[in-house]
Amino acid sequence: MKNIIIASTSTLHGGTYLEYLLPELQLHFKNCTSIVFIPFARPSGISHTEYTDKVRETFEKINIEVKGLHEFEDKPKALKNAEAIFTGGGNTFLLVQQLYHHQVMTVLSETVKKGTPYLGTSAGSNICGLSIQTTNDMPIVYPPSFQTLGLIPFNLNPHYLDADLQSKHMGETRETRIKEFHAFNNIPVLGLREGSWLEVKGEKITLKGDLSARLFEANQAPKKITSGSDLSDLK
Amino acid sequence: MKNIIIASTSTLHGGTYLEYLLPELQLHFKNCTSIVFIPFARPSGISHTEYTDKVRETFEKINIEVKGLHEFEDKPKALKNAEAIFTGGGNTFLLVQQLYHHQVMTVLSETVKKGTPYLGTSAGSNICGLSIQTTNDMPIVYPPSFQTLGLIPFNLNPHYLDADLQSKHMGETRETRIKEFHAFNNIPVLGLREGSWLEVKGEKITLKGDLSARLFEANQAPKKITSGSDLSDLK
Repeated sequence: MKNIIIASTSTLHGGTYLEYLLPELQLHFKNCTSIVFIPFARPSGISHTEYTDKVRETFEKINIEVKGLHEFEDKPKALKNAEAIFTGGGNTFLLVQQLYHHQVMTVLSETVKKGTPYLGTSAGSNICGLSIQTTNDMPIVYPPSFQTLGLIPFNLNPHYLDADLQSKHMGETRETRIKEFHAFNNIPVLGLREGSWLEVKGEKITLKGDLSARLFEANQAPKKITSGSDLSDLK
Repeated sequence: MKNIIIASTSTLHGGTYLEYLLPELQLHFKNCTSIVFIPFARPSGISHTEYTDKVRETFEKINIEVKGLHEFEDKPKALKNAEAIFTGGGNTFLLVQQLYHHQVMTVLSETVKKGTPYLGTSAGSNICGLSIQTTNDMPIVYPPSFQTLGLIPFNLNPHYLDADLQSKHMGETRETRIKEFHAFNNIPVLGLREGSWLEVKGEKITLKGDLSARLFEANQAPKKITSGSDLSDLK
């Protein structure tokens, strides 16, 4: 049975890394003594080792040992045998390119579908949907495909932001970008605000956190989704 | 000899479409009575016809007839024979996918290099660089390559925005995104603010407009480039 937390962000303004989620993670990973961390998204270009060290520091607080996936020779086996898995944020294109390069996209999906507890933040959440076609990131590398894990039957837009009506900037708003996506695709897109996350237990998907989310569907006006809503039927 | 205007945006806050550039375009296209417009980037998902009509309205003011590239059966021939070419903004991934789909990426590059006057705005400017790896757009479709026209030997970031130091939003700033690009690529990136454009005359590249631009190079601190600067040696 799937057991997943899909978070918009790792860090809230004024907080430390994963601080706001830590009580939740303590429950989520309560039967685990170790976790395999996937550092491939490399935020700001930091190394796999630096990134894994940062995550290790945080998980020490809840007595969970962290191993970086980059440390394993046999990466598919490391994921299959993991007690739990966490994919951190950074650049989604890079993350996806690396998952394909190491031939772990399918095994990661299968492993999490079988019930290995999973945590994703930002880029690590983006890949839980059907594709990365609604990421906010820059295409710094060319991945062999935009298709991702398909752990949920819709797409995400993490760090979702409403349009700033005061702004004189003429670049597209987040809503316009998602509208452009829907000119060519029918997949629903959930705009997840910072501090929001999806809890996936088996086939049940619930919106958590203090804020509402914004749901975009092709040819429909966007909808407000309140925290606690059941999204299991969204597809 | 190359004769190109590469503009950050089509429209300034409070202005109408191409209004701020119109005196410049009158000079740029002074020997032309018609222009071929490439509407493939489809901003907000509008149709090729709607987009071309909008452009037609504007160019009527300077007595230039507009034909949409989508109207031509033989698209490579239409570009080769064009008096002038304009590629409008919208979604860069879609634009690039369509240019490859219609097999006009190479012919467009060759035609403009031979001297056909060209105007690009936003997505139509992005493709003047070496690749679309520094676009701000959402990857709504999967193009067969990120490589583009190579009319200038560096990349652009149109609609460039400085970080908002007041913001509590934790998504990456534009500067961080470009830094991530430089963790994997050595191509310089010029952040072009709205209202700025590059004038390319033969091999001479000059920054135009009221504002400065921001230049990012791998392993170097970003530099301020003042309007009027010669960027011919940047690569």
